[in-house]
Amino acid sequence: MIDVPFFSQFLKVSNFYTLIAIVLLGAAMVCLKMLKDKKVSFSKRMIIALIIGLVLGIGIDIISNKSGIYIDHARGEISAWFGLIGTGFLKLVQLLAIPVVFLSIIKVVVDVQGDRIRSLTGRTFITLLSTTAISAIVGILVVKLFNLNATSFAGDLTEQKTEFINNIASQSFPEFFLNLIPNNIISVMGDNGSIVSVVIIAAMFASAIRFLKVKKPTEVAPFVTFLDSLRTTVNSVLTNVIKLMPYGVVALVSNTIISNGIQSVVSMLGFIAALYTGVIIMLLVYVVILSFMGVNPVMFYKKAFNTLLFAFSSRSSVGTLPYTLQTLEKDMGVSGETSNFVATLGTTIGMNGCAGVFPAMLGTLVAAAAGATMDFSFFVLVVVVVTVGSIGIAGVPGTATVAATVTLNGLGYGSAISSIGAVFGIDPIVDMGRTMLNVCGSMVSSIVVDKWEGTFDKDQFNTPSNHTQINE
Amino acid sequence: MIDVPFFSQFLKVSNFYTLIAIVLLGAAMVCLKMLKDKKVSFSKRMIIALIIGLVLGIGIDIISNKSGIYIDHARGEISAWFGLIGTGFLKLVQLLAIPVVFLSIIKVVVDVQGDRIRSLTGRTFITLLSTTAISAIVGILVVKLFNLNATSFAGDLTEQKTEFINNIASQSFPEFFLNLIPNNIISVMGDNGSIVSVVIIAAMFASAIRFLKVKKPTEVAPFVTFLDSLRTTVNSVLTNVIKLMPYGVVALVSNTIISNGIQSVVSMLGFIAALYTGVIIMLLVYVVILSFMGVNPVMFYKKAFNTLLFAFSSRSSVGTLPYTLQTLEKDMGVSGETSNFVATLGTTIGMNGCAGVFPAMLGTLVAAAAGATMDFSFFVLVVVVVTVGSIGIAGVPGTATVAATVTLNGLGYGSAISSIGAVFGIDPIVDMGRTMLNVCGSMVSSIVVDKWEGTFDKDQFNTPSNHTQINE
Amino acid sequence: MIDVPFFSQFLKVSNFYTLIAIVLLGAAMVCLKMLKDKKVSFSKRMIIALIIGLVLGIGIDIISNKSGIYIDHARGEISAWFGLIGTGFLKLVQLLAIPVVFLSIIKVVVDVQGDRIRSLTGRTFITLLSTTAISAIVGILVVKLFNLNATSFAGDLTEQKTEFINNIASQSFPEFFLNLIPNNIISVMGDNGSIVSVVIIAAMFASAIRFLKVKKPTEVAPFVTFLDSLRTTVNSVLTNVIKLMPYGVVALVSNTIISNGIQSVVSMLGFIAALYTGVIIMLLVYVVILSFMGVNPVMFYKKAFNTLLFAFSSRSSVGTLPYTLQTLEKDMGVSGETSNFVATLGTTIGMNGCAGVFPAMLGTLVAAAAGATMDFSFFVLVVVVVTVGSIGIAGVPGTATVAATVTLNGLGYGSAISSIGAVFGIDPIVDMGRTMLNVCGSMVSSIVVDKWEGTFDKDQFNTPSNHTQINE
Repeated sequence: MIDVPFFSQFLKVSNFYTLIAIVLLGAAMVCLKMLKDKKVSFSKRMIIALIIGLVLGIGIDIISNKSGIYIDHARGEISAWFGLIGTGFLKLVQLLAIPVVFLSIIKVVVDVQGDRIRSLTGRTFITLLSTTAISAIVGILVVKLFNLNATSFAGDLTEQKTEFINNIASQSFPEFFLNLIPNNIISVMGDNGSIVSVVIIAAMFASAIRFLKVKKPTEVAPFVTFLDSLRTTVNSVLTNVIKLMPYGVVALVSNTIISNGIQSVVSMLGFIAALYTGVIIMLLVYVVILSFMGVNPVMFYKKAFNTLLFAFSSRSSVGTLPYTLQTLEKDMGVSGETSNFVATLGTTIGMNGCAGVFPAMLGTLVAAAAGATMDFSFFVLVVVVVTVGSIGIAGVPGTATVAATVTLNGLGYGSAISSIGAVFGIDPIVDMGRTMLNVCGSMVSSIVVDKWEGTFDKDQFNTPSNHTQINE
Repeated sequence: MIDVPFFSQFLKVSNFYTLIAIVLLGAAMVCLKMLKDKKVSFSKRMIIALIIGLVLGIGIDIISNKSGIYIDHARGEISAWFGLIGTGFLKLVQLLAIPVVFLSIIKVVVDVQGDRIRSLTGRTFITLLSTTAISAIVGILVVKLFNLNATSFAGDLTEQKTEFINNIASQSFPEFFLNLIPNNIISVMGDNGSIVSVVIIAAMFASAIRFLKVKKPTEVAPFVTFLDSLRTTVNSVLTNVIKLMPYGVVALVSNTIISNGIQSVVSMLGFIAALYTGVIIMLLVYVVILSFMGVNPVMFYKKAFNTLLFAFSSRSSVGTLPYTLQTLEKDMGVSGETSNFVATLGTTIGMNGCAGVFPAMLGTLVAAAAGATMDFSFFVLVVVVVTVGSIGIAGVPGTATVAATVTLNGLGYGSAISSIGAVFGIDPIVDMGRTMLNVCGSMVSSIVVDKWEGTFDKDQFNTPSNHTQINE
Repeated sequence: MIDVPFFSQFLKVSNFYTLIAIVLLGAAMVCLKMLKDKKVSFSKRMIIALIIGLVLGIGIDIISNKSGIYIDHARGEISAWFGLIGTGFLKLVQLLAIPVVFLSIIKVVVDVQGDRIRSLTGRTFITLLSTTAISAIVGILVVKLFNLNATSFAGDLTEQKTEFINNIASQSFPEFFLNLIPNNIISVMGDNGSIVSVVIIAAMFASAIRFLKVKKPTEVAPFVTFLDSLRTTVNSVLTNVIKLMPYGVVALVSNTIISNGIQSVVSMLGFIAALYTGVIIMLLVYVVILSFMGVNPVMFYKKAFNTLLFAFSSRSSVGTLPYTLQTLEKDMGVSGETSNFVATLGTTIGMNGCAGVFPAMLGTLVAAAAGATMDFSFFVLVVVVVTVGSIGIAGVPGTATVAATVTLNGLGYGSAISSIGAVFGIDPIVDMGRTMLNVCGSMVSSIVVDKWEGTFDKDQFNTPSNHTQINE
């Protein structure tokens, strides 16, 4: 190990562990590039990327685990370099979230028939909230099933986290809602956390455009033409970024494992297993829902696979959104209006993972530890608090923690959140499953709403997708 | 009262007072909607909204005043829910302030004859500052008239307010001005407080466009066409938002009363009465000015009524600006160049209420308490300090407090501001009158400047307005 | 002197020193305006402005130096008023930096042949880093030459500076790089420090446009037309701002001298002389490089003069950038692709002054004081650390301090930076030379890369420039 600050503190390459890890990541990238040149399909490359990422992460951590150099230096260094690739890619996708949402919503509202908006909004809320309520029930269930006990997860919160939680705890439902209403177009668009505000602005402009298209068609035409042309360009940029996805997945997955360490996962195995069981139960619930709607669940998961895999790796619902929209519209035959409405709102309202399963689990855990009577009425309260809370917290970044805070405060155990600090220590591991569930939930909801609206194109859904855009 | 945190802290509906208040607000909204469906004119609905708002606010506060539940819980809860409607609406109007100003100024400067800009700027400053000087005299007058004494308004400032005041106190005239010069287009447009900077940017672009229209007409045309089309769209969005104004007025007015409480108004009655007397005197001064210019003051107040009412309810000069501009141009026959220049600058420079009457009152009050000799030369100093200060503070949010701070510092009694803390306790009540006066002053100044420039369309001014756009 | 707060604290005109200084500045402005009306060429007016600025600054400071009023009041007041003009002008130029870079890079990447981008990027990095390495050597050299000793520059850092340095010191190479990757278009464009991120966004959009021009020409055309038209407008706005440059130079130069004071310069003469010697050596190194490339160095400095003079006065590489680009393209015959790429990246990567000479000087100084062995291997380490560091710090504002911090940390003497606080006390004086060197380095690098690429138009370079745009 080179003990010169230039290498250990600035360059972050001070020992062989780091060097080898970087070389291995590089090799993985080259592999994926070669597979692409050999015209291996995008989906296959995504699976391979996931496997490489897991192998790389688990492999490096297990082999190096005993070394002091690894634990004290290399882990942080590897994490910085892998983060440069993984987070760097994620930032490029997030870059397009606001423009894609803004331009899509404008197109949707301009094109849609006037009276549909109201029914669309109502049905979207009903569907998203119903699945969230089911998620809350599943959350309670798995805590009972795994017999989890809050005392096993005792630990301290960081000072920053505590401050964040206290800040959230002081806000109320009407205040959360007021924060969603935009008061400056530019500042709202400069903040990736304000997707709902962007939707409101887009809707306001779109309804003005619809009105002007009848009253002053010549005057409004140049602006509309500009927006169309811009949307074409933004979508093309997006396609280019999505092509890089397999490379990003390798770095993101392996980095999540390395930066947390296998050891920390093992110590929290009970909680992690319970949460992932909850995720799997929900995925099965979706099978039931889809079958009930007459939609083939196998085809759904086949087509949703890449999107879910990216949500899992990236832990960012908003980052995944551009891809979610493309999959729904191009592969699954969901109408543009529905997919844009449901999937976009679904990144902030009624998230099945972050604002459903997870806060319900924490609420049940903490309340049990505090000696609350675990009767039927209590569980009903949990489900109500979680579901109503999942609307209120829309648009606040760090959704899962926010939802947990709101739930615990709503149940009257707000101060007890600090007693289960260990849960937040492994948050990234848990967040992978949670985010995937959010995205899957909003995709299922999109299909449900689209069927309800009568605009679902079942033939397109059943046609095997070819992903021409991405594979070429 | 339900004493569960979910209801009292999160939902903010924990008792019957809150519930009934929300139901009453809802009923008021339905009433206003019915009046609209019955084609009652916009102006009538605005007056009705003001009356309902006053009745609702005073009624709820007087009836509930004795109840501990109301004072400890319901007042805050009602304020949160009424604020969601009132402030929510206000934010939607503010959303359009920057785009409307930017696009209007560009159009104005492109269209105006080159040499007019200089005369326009000079005359605008002269007119705005003259009315501000008159306001300062009126401010001194009412303090003497009501025999106000600073010791009646003793009270502590909040820590946040003190910090804000200290920060302002350390800035000087050249520094305030330097802050107005923009150094980044996007960051300036992302801040609703930087209207003057937006005007500067718009003027720079407009003069380039004017030059290019002669030298490179084909190259510049697409950008100009885009801006025209965008302006049409933004104005249409604005019209839609303005239609919601009566609903906003009900919530804003009643909320100002409820959240402050009648009790606090009574204890400060002396100050409030003095300020509103000052406002009324200024409104009469405008009658004199307009008559002197040969403009019918009755017609002016008739046409200005809705705008002034909204300024009164919203307490936001910038929020009212889009409506001010429409009224001046469409109803009052003020030329686009003048109205855009004067009214836009008037939201930050030479505000008759916030930077005229109010700081003059505070300066006189505090200086008298500190034992200053109240001779003629002192009053002249007050008028000079207030008037010059009213330019310097342009663009700093929280204008009234800033103006008061600058005035007191200028007179040498800066540290004494904390001795009259009670005045800031009822600021929203006072701010309603102040803001209305700002807007009225800038409208009168627009007419004065437009007459001076010879572009005032008296016939249009004298034609009864039909508000077709909004009533339809 | 008028001891009324209104004059001394708010207006900042409380004594004759201030009044006379303001009058003198006004007279200088009028002089320059008259010279312009007499059609004196822009370059001549720039030189005259520099001379007036120096005379004004040195004159006022030497004459007033003995007066307590000047030292306690007038210096600060003059600085505030001169700053209003100087910094105000600088802000107007900075206003255009982001739009100019964004629109230029888009045009360049759309027009350039696909495979050139890679070679262009590679060669740009090589050239910028080579000149930085040479600068580092020069930096070491001048410390030895002037026999500087760290103990002469002992002094305390401000608390704010210390915090800034500690914050920088905790970041690493991969973290600096990750910060360059944008994740929101609007927020990046709202920050003048994020030029590299803007370049990345522009490149992403441009490559999408290039692809769409072939595949969907009709759809992409309106957006491209809009961008072209916007670029024409922005360039016209820029031309208007540049015309004001001589006025800005007078205020900027005199203000730098007055606000620092001749006295402080004298006490730090050793360091200042060493740094400016380093700057001059580098300017001679460029002569060698250019001659070696077969480019006439006299013609280069003649054409670069105005740009370098502005960089010197404004102390802002980004602020100078729009002018740098115009000079390279219109006067020096450097192709648009190269100039945009090299000069834009050169404002953040491989800055010869801020990230070359300066940090090398500080590193050598501090290490010598700390007793490091000054052998060959140490100097190699300094050069490596400085050069690699000059990439890593890209895009962090306050480049020189950042580069010094990174270098000292890299050498292992991070904590010693506070021992030479006096160096930062006269930073503006030193910054003038440093910034000029940055800009000159990036211009030389542009020519080197353009020759290498074979796109350099030597005939245009050798044609005397006429500056028609600006002189008219």
